[in-house]
Amino acid sequence: MAPLQENPSYRTTERTVPTRSRDRASYDRDLVHSILDEAYVCHLGFVRDGAPVVLPTLYGRVGDTLYVHGSTGSRPLRMAGQADPGLDVCLTVTHVDGLVLARSAFHHSINYRSVVVHGTARQVTDPEEKRSALDALVDHVVPGRSRDSRPADAKELAATAVLRLDLDEVSAKVRTGGPSDDPEDLSLPYWTGVVPLVHGHGTPVPADDLDPSVALPEYLSAP
Amino acid sequence: MAPLQENPSYRTTERTVPTRSRDRASYDRDLVHSILDEAYVCHLGFVRDGAPVVLPTLYGRVGDTLYVHGSTGSRPLRMAGQADPGLDVCLTVTHVDGLVLARSAFHHSINYRSVVVHGTARQVTDPEEKRSALDALVDHVVPGRSRDSRPADAKELAATAVLRLDLDEVSAKVRTGGPSDDPEDLSLPYWTGVVPLVHGHGTPVPADDLDPSVALPEYLSAP
Repeated sequence: MAPLQENPSYRTTERTVPTRSRDRASYDRDLVHSILDEAYVCHLGFVRDGAPVVLPTLYGRVGDTLYVHGSTGSRPLRMAGQADPGLDVCLTVTHVDGLVLARSAFHHSINYRSVVVHGTARQVTDPEEKRSALDALVDHVVPGRSRDSRPADAKELAATAVLRLDLDEVSAKVRTGGPSDDPEDLSLPYWTGVVPLVHGHGTPVPADDLDPSVALPEYLSAP
Repeated sequence: MAPLQENPSYRTTERTVPTRSRDRASYDRDLVHSILDEAYVCHLGFVRDGAPVVLPTLYGRVGDTLYVHGSTGSRPLRMAGQADPGLDVCLTVTHVDGLVLARSAFHHSINYRSVVVHGTARQVTDPEEKRSALDALVDHVVPGRSRDSRPADAKELAATAVLRLDLDEVSAKVRTGGPSDDPEDLSLPYWTGVVPLVHGHGTPVPADDLDPSVALPEYLSAP
């Protein structure tokens, strides 16, 4: 029997279908994963005393589950632990790829790729899942790094709370390409085009107290 | 008479004082402004039907006021126009400056600079303020660009809603420097240090239909 085929797309819901620029929206699983995997921080939104709070935080992905972590004393982690079944969150990741300069101020824009995840963040209680989640968080920052560092001990595990958020109600939004000026503006004398933004890694800076005999690991060497 | 001296710091409130890592928090006005001015997008959080929503969006700053804009039909803009006195929002901006690799998984971190603004976003109704806000939005992406593009006409102005958010309840958070491993981990054989992240502008790509006689403006030339 053939294995069940994973659905290549996420379902759409009222809140994942934008009111505008619908042609920029996508529910493609691979696209969503690639956008999530490329960013370092997400912006996690939740409601506290009726008001919105948005905090930047690291995250990791294992299949269709995202993990965020924090001190057991931090606000969203504490709130998620106390709420049943969990904490309503919106987790958003954005890459800015280019500045789009149109001839008209109105059509200025940016090229970007974003993912918005709606859902309920639940505290991870299973010790095995917690360990895998923490590995995923470290490996999200530097792939392969979790195997090349000291794993969390019992005390550190107890001090760390991990939330899981399933990728279910999720959408991507992407803008690419050049400006789209109105036909009557095409002869205006303004420069128009795209300024690409470039992002990369600089030369790793060893800690002052690093034993000089420890070589730079391969996963940090330039390709 | 000497002009009134602007307070160099924002006030602190219960929600701008973090529960953890208080030494990373700052209320310094210049620091907050510099973090805001360097980013292209913010993440705007609001509450819709009781649940959090976080959307990436462009913004501009004029003194101690931030502006965001959008179609008059977009959700947060519509909600802010209908709510009295406005829409409770949390606007967050984050720069990721480096990856911090400690010997222990637990002490892995990132170097970052973030600003979190809490407040009420109000629709801008004054036409002059709306025009200045739209200029600020364009100039935020490329300084000087608003003077070198066609300003919005009446139809475009009518189709665009602008929200203002005063910088009042605001804090910055900054992490710099190397990893902080526990003393008992210092002899572990793992590479440790910081991988800086570099961000820059690539070579501007003219639009296909740009008249070749239009030169690249000075504000886009490499310094």
